[in-house]
Amino acid sequence: MTESVKNGALYGVGVGPGDPELMTLKAVRVLEGSAVIAVPKSAGAAPDAASRALSIASKGAELKGKEILRLLLPMTKDAARLKEARQTAASAIAGRLEKGLDVSFITLGDPMLYSTFSYLVPFVRKLLPDAPVRVIPGVTSFSAAAASAIIPLAESGGKVAIIPAAYDIEDLRERIAANDTVVLMKVNRAMDALIGLLCSMGLEKNAVFVSRASWPDEEVVTDIKSLKGASPDYFSTVIIKK
Amino acid sequence: MTESVKNGALYGVGVGPGDPELMTLKAVRVLEGSAVIAVPKSAGAAPDAASRALSIASKGAELKGKEILRLLLPMTKDAARLKEARQTAASAIAGRLEKGLDVSFITLGDPMLYSTFSYLVPFVRKLLPDAPVRVIPGVTSFSAAAASAIIPLAESGGKVAIIPAAYDIEDLRERIAANDTVVLMKVNRAMDALIGLLCSMGLEKNAVFVSRASWPDEEVVTDIKSLKGASPDYFSTVIIKK
Repeated sequence: MTESVKNGALYGVGVGPGDPELMTLKAVRVLEGSAVIAVPKSAGAAPDAASRALSIASKGAELKGKEILRLLLPMTKDAARLKEARQTAASAIAGRLEKGLDVSFITLGDPMLYSTFSYLVPFVRKLLPDAPVRVIPGVTSFSAAAASAIIPLAESGGKVAIIPAAYDIEDLRERIAANDTVVLMKVNRAMDALIGLLCSMGLEKNAVFVSRASWPDEEVVTDIKSLKGASPDYFSTVIIKK
Repeated sequence: MTESVKNGALYGVGVGPGDPELMTLKAVRVLEGSAVIAVPKSAGAAPDAASRALSIASKGAELKGKEILRLLLPMTKDAARLKEARQTAASAIAGRLEKGLDVSFITLGDPMLYSTFSYLVPFVRKLLPDAPVRVIPGVTSFSAAAASAIIPLAESGGKVAIIPAAYDIEDLRERIAANDTVVLMKVNRAMDALIGLLCSMGLEKNAVFVSRASWPDEEVVTDIKSLKGASPDYFSTVIIKK
């Protein structure tokens, strides 16, 4: 008689914003205890986010001998293609969990904020309802940006809005008016429109631009107008504080 | 001839949401390299936040032999009293920095989010303009809450609002309508009004309550209506996700 193997656990592990030292002790322990490191590769939008997350993880934790499982998770609005990609990824993960192997799915920053981990969980659960799923939170890129600029995101009672990419400038005007702090993530596509908006609101001196926060080539720019016409990279954040 | 002592560095160190394992490697290194651990004691509002931060730090890092510098930073609207308290705290810190000692000011979660660290920095800089100031970002309580509940804070393109304590219910209604996710921090004082609002918006099944996220006595409640009449503690978060 053979005993049935206990399912491994699936972990969503935030590796933090970029500096491997900004990984948590728990992230390091969980990664080192996992046989499989799953790396989402979202073809298209995030140029090197996947390889960046793996590079951070391998500097902060010992990954030698582990299987690196690359999962293709395209950024597309085609629902059928999305579903198929997620099913394929989930079944690759479930195959490892069934063998009793723990799988750590790594993401830049925090797994519950703009990561593809949460999309995958229901697919994995459908295949293996009994496999434990755990999330290890991580330091977000906007906390790292605020730390680098030494700009408080919020003080007592302050309301904060977090807005990812693709801005509707009129909507943004209202959100800036309605909050004490507005964090704009992946601001690269809209810098000139944003600078115009801030100037029209008299807030051009209330904004800080941070690119690649906590990375060795981090950049902090307090004179936001100097970025007019510039093409900042994907990993750029603007903090507007009134 | 005696050489002048180089000023120590002032660090704002986030120790994370509660679980000592959610401290970053950098927080541990910086704390262990600091001669002085400054602990803000904000009499009044946050019952045991200060001692909680110190307890986390002492579990995640070796603090033996270090000076524990307790700073009284009252939560008051009396501007003169606030200024005096901050000046007193800043001068206690500056006294250590002048002797070449590094000082780590610890906060729960992240130092740039609802912490008193940012208030102190200008006072210390006035006394010692040349002392380096650095911020070590930490995992926030809302990332930990989302991780425990396995509720994504935001998926691709989602807009997130973070709102601390003391709610104006009509304002909150508008913010819930205007965002994909709303995070309510320190929700303890307003649970019944909040439950009423969520029910009136048909969103009572879209909210998760998390108390003491990542602590050993953490509590996750998905049936928010069951909390009617309850008095949750200070460290409680509600995530509303549409």
